[in-house]
Amino acid sequence: MIAESLLNRLNSGEFDQGRLPAERRLSEEYSTTRITLREALALLEARGKIYRELRRGWFIAPPRLVYNPLLRSHFHEMAALQGREAQTEVLSASEIPATPLLAQQLSVAQGENLYCIRRLRRIDGRAVLYVEHYLNPAFFPGLLQEDLTRSLTELYEKLYNIRYGGVRFTVLPGPLPAFSAPALNVASGSPGICITRINQNQHRQVIDCDYEYWRYDALCVDVEIN
Amino acid sequence: MIAESLLNRLNSGEFDQGRLPAERRLSEEYSTTRITLREALALLEARGKIYRELRRGWFIAPPRLVYNPLLRSHFHEMAALQGREAQTEVLSASEIPATPLLAQQLSVAQGENLYCIRRLRRIDGRAVLYVEHYLNPAFFPGLLQEDLTRSLTELYEKLYNIRYGGVRFTVLPGPLPAFSAPALNVASGSPGICITRINQNQHRQVIDCDYEYWRYDALCVDVEIN
Repeated sequence: MIAESLLNRLNSGEFDQGRLPAERRLSEEYSTTRITLREALALLEARGKIYRELRRGWFIAPPRLVYNPLLRSHFHEMAALQGREAQTEVLSASEIPATPLLAQQLSVAQGENLYCIRRLRRIDGRAVLYVEHYLNPAFFPGLLQEDLTRSLTELYEKLYNIRYGGVRFTVLPGPLPAFSAPALNVASGSPGICITRINQNQHRQVIDCDYEYWRYDALCVDVEIN
Repeated sequence: MIAESLLNRLNSGEFDQGRLPAERRLSEEYSTTRITLREALALLEARGKIYRELRRGWFIAPPRLVYNPLLRSHFHEMAALQGREAQTEVLSASEIPATPLLAQQLSVAQGENLYCIRRLRRIDGRAVLYVEHYLNPAFFPGLLQEDLTRSLTELYEKLYNIRYGGVRFTVLPGPLPAFSAPALNVASGSPGICITRINQNQHRQVIDCDYEYWRYDALCVDVEIN
């Protein structure tokens, strides 16, 4: 099976420079048609092992960040555990009036003030996640004055003695909207993953919600249930 | 906020026929530019509420199947619980020799016989999932002679007294490979979700693995942790 042979060669480090040989050369090596070869390449692409660049050929995909929703580690910690380097950039931090949807999600009155923090997160230098956090300020007075490049999880605990309790989250693959795409260096409408999270504190009160927009090729959701 | 107003109108059933008014008309109604309107539409698209058809405009998205990986219900049961109708078509059922990767995943020797079952699954008549099941036949002698449009979960239990124990699964958004795309009525390379599952029985032996290829817009992964 061509796909498996290619995978073995990938894993053995045969293709240095992170680049596969040209399709023509590969189809000669495997004595097969371009169509058959492309099916094998598409299978490896679907499994996240390689990606294609227009007119440039096939490249080895950087490993995806493995996201286990059952673990409660935050972004920087998750990256570090996987030997990756995480960076956070604050795009904006402001107070906004709660729209009807946010008011409902955060259990506050419509028009009440919320904190809105927009951040861009990088893995090994590559922008992979655009996130909007909406916080109920009643739980976090003065938070906007803090260093918001830090983990919110850590700030919550250190400054407000608040820890995450229950969480409800939804993973929705779909096209990235225009406000998130430029920061991620992709065209508006490129495939992405929208993760919505509504978080409670240790006393089961809703304290914040996040809208995360990921590059589809940066993330892999992995769950093991025993 | 235009997106929220549109969402309310969607939810109230204002747009019958499942179709939104033309962009021109909507931008007049909201006294806004096409650019601003399109951002609102793209936000609703990212949240899975609407979708666009080339040259035809915007439509209300059918509800996605909600998939909670922590629940052990099978496809037909999951659909029924959500008021949806599931259908299964068997594309092929055969014995194949284990490739190195499959041998490793199923803990069998390379070249040993495996059962390979390929199926297409529909929700409310629409093809949403192409799946390849690879089974260790030692656990399921004679299974290929059974009615494979039925739930494997049910056949396992009824015929072999085998229930699913632990499971390891990976959710990987990415382009759909050519062998899965035609059955799903999309172009090869269209965005999809590849879910890989390695299943154990109640005695912690690996009994089968699945490669599922979903239309990205058919599925929503939803998890609540308390």
